[in-house]
Amino acid sequence: MIPDCPSIRVLSPATVANMVCGFDVLGFCLDEPTDVMTLTLLPGATSITIRHTDGFDLPCDPALNVAGAALLAMQEELAGKPPFAGCPPETPLAFAPRQVGFELVIEKRIKPGSGVGSSAASAAGAVVAANILLGGIFSREALVRFAMCGEKVASGVKHADNIAPCIYGGVTLIRSIFPLDIVALPAPSLYASVVHPQIEVRTADARQILMEKVLLRDAIRQWGNIAGLVAGILQADHSLIGRSLEDVLIEPVRKILIPGFDRVKESCLSAGALGGGISGSGPSIFMLSATRSTALSVAEAMGTVYRDLGIDFHTYVGPIASSGVRVDPTYEHAVL
Amino acid sequence: MIPDCPSIRVLSPATVANMVCGFDVLGFCLDEPTDVMTLTLLPGATSITIRHTDGFDLPCDPALNVAGAALLAMQEELAGKPPFAGCPPETPLAFAPRQVGFELVIEKRIKPGSGVGSSAASAAGAVVAANILLGGIFSREALVRFAMCGEKVASGVKHADNIAPCIYGGVTLIRSIFPLDIVALPAPSLYASVVHPQIEVRTADARQILMEKVLLRDAIRQWGNIAGLVAGILQADHSLIGRSLEDVLIEPVRKILIPGFDRVKESCLSAGALGGGISGSGPSIFMLSATRSTALSVAEAMGTVYRDLGIDFHTYVGPIASSGVRVDPTYEHAVL
Repeated sequence: MIPDCPSIRVLSPATVANMVCGFDVLGFCLDEPTDVMTLTLLPGATSITIRHTDGFDLPCDPALNVAGAALLAMQEELAGKPPFAGCPPETPLAFAPRQVGFELVIEKRIKPGSGVGSSAASAAGAVVAANILLGGIFSREALVRFAMCGEKVASGVKHADNIAPCIYGGVTLIRSIFPLDIVALPAPSLYASVVHPQIEVRTADARQILMEKVLLRDAIRQWGNIAGLVAGILQADHSLIGRSLEDVLIEPVRKILIPGFDRVKESCLSAGALGGGISGSGPSIFMLSATRSTALSVAEAMGTVYRDLGIDFHTYVGPIASSGVRVDPTYEHAVL
Repeated sequence: MIPDCPSIRVLSPATVANMVCGFDVLGFCLDEPTDVMTLTLLPGATSITIRHTDGFDLPCDPALNVAGAALLAMQEELAGKPPFAGCPPETPLAFAPRQVGFELVIEKRIKPGSGVGSSAASAAGAVVAANILLGGIFSREALVRFAMCGEKVASGVKHADNIAPCIYGGVTLIRSIFPLDIVALPAPSLYASVVHPQIEVRTADARQILMEKVLLRDAIRQWGNIAGLVAGILQADHSLIGRSLEDVLIEPVRKILIPGFDRVKESCLSAGALGGGISGSGPSIFMLSATRSTALSVAEAMGTVYRDLGIDFHTYVGPIASSGVRVDPTYEHAVL
């Protein structure tokens, strides 16, 4: 924190991408865990300095850090330069071009590589915090565009299926990525159970094992399911949500990277979960349930499987969060 | 009509399957045109006799006629026999097994091969009419199963994307065909314009030119669009509906069978349509508009293209109908 420079602390939550049948387009926001990010704005500066207070040994060079890359993209647009290819700047530019620097302190609590949007949380948290300090000059869609530059640093791909729910909250649909078209769906009244077995699945590996072509027949089944899932969410039809949480394309391939996947799924359904599957590219597995108590039983069932397998794990249980990145009220009070 | 035997007349409407991005799973119901079907129930009989008062020279053998095949499937279940493979009978059987025969007079007004669910209208109209005369013992889902046997006679495939909207009205999603899972969506407040150029596209041909495999990348774009379309319908977001009416998989292949397709689409969008595409497997083309007056202008634009091309055509304009097969009130009065 630098005296006289505006500063803020945000909590940037974990997210679940894909939602089984919504590969690359659907995602939802969790309440916990969150990264804790403290950002200071340096008017007139151009520097971005990043410090990590966690033990993950992530790079602090802004161009190599997901939060840094997101802030760099925002800096470019702030300076009036066109943003990354394919996405036109806000038209007309809603503000006078300016130079600002950032000092960012990240306490990463969402373990990188866990499959619950760790990189997205850093990228989204940074730009949401910056936008608040800038007086909210950017739209949420613009913030997603900036944060996508962070995702590119993390995985080589500018995807938005974790970024969008992290910023919008609830459930989000990326109808189209080029041009970017985000559809915010209200958070259904459902509880998520997430288990993170302590094994590594690299996003790049999880992408590589997918086939480039799929059977049209399977694709039709998949889009029947995603249509059913969206209808179920909007009509608050839990049974329909459960029936639609089926993935005939990605899960059969990717689950081989996750030990115990079939057993976890089976025992969660027995414990009352509506359905679920791989979170993002794994190794985390998520399940949705109608009540918190069922979600707690489901998390217990997840834990039992990994205890039996002798694999360390963490579980989280909480509602689908209706809001994304949120200001840490404790910090606001400390500053004012 | 046979004295003392219960009899009814129904109007069975045209339907639009696929809805651009919802290949094989979405469909909606039109107000017009309708087939006019007069059905008489013959208690204790087993015969099905069919007579056509139109000039289409369709087969009258029940096993070869779409309405007849649907009634045969219903007769089997009425007699307590299990229905067609993969679809279990209503459990428990909600009625005492019985034998009934049917006499059906069909005035076909929906031209076969036009791409607006002509065969579905006959199959659906027959079983809805029969169910009314039987006191409504069958669920709508059971009626869809019977009518699908009619579709099989017409095209060799038991599909339900015309049948379901014809029976349920509004927009329907076939989330899954085996097992059958139909999701009824409310009819959005939109007007359809349909043009039927007088050329022939056989459903079987239109199926044959499709690739068995598609790029995963394209499939993802397609399911982003269907998710957007369902969200747009349920949230009454016309702009989202318009943006989502995009088909990167089927339309690019099938449109080559329809002369003037690109010109029609372009001029309809210029006339204010939200979007649209091939109806079913063609050759009809449909467009959706926010108001009736826009839908009329759109139909005019469609007509202009085919007049220029020297191809005969018919156009229809009407709302997405919230009800499917309906009883003809004129006939009821005449009988009672």
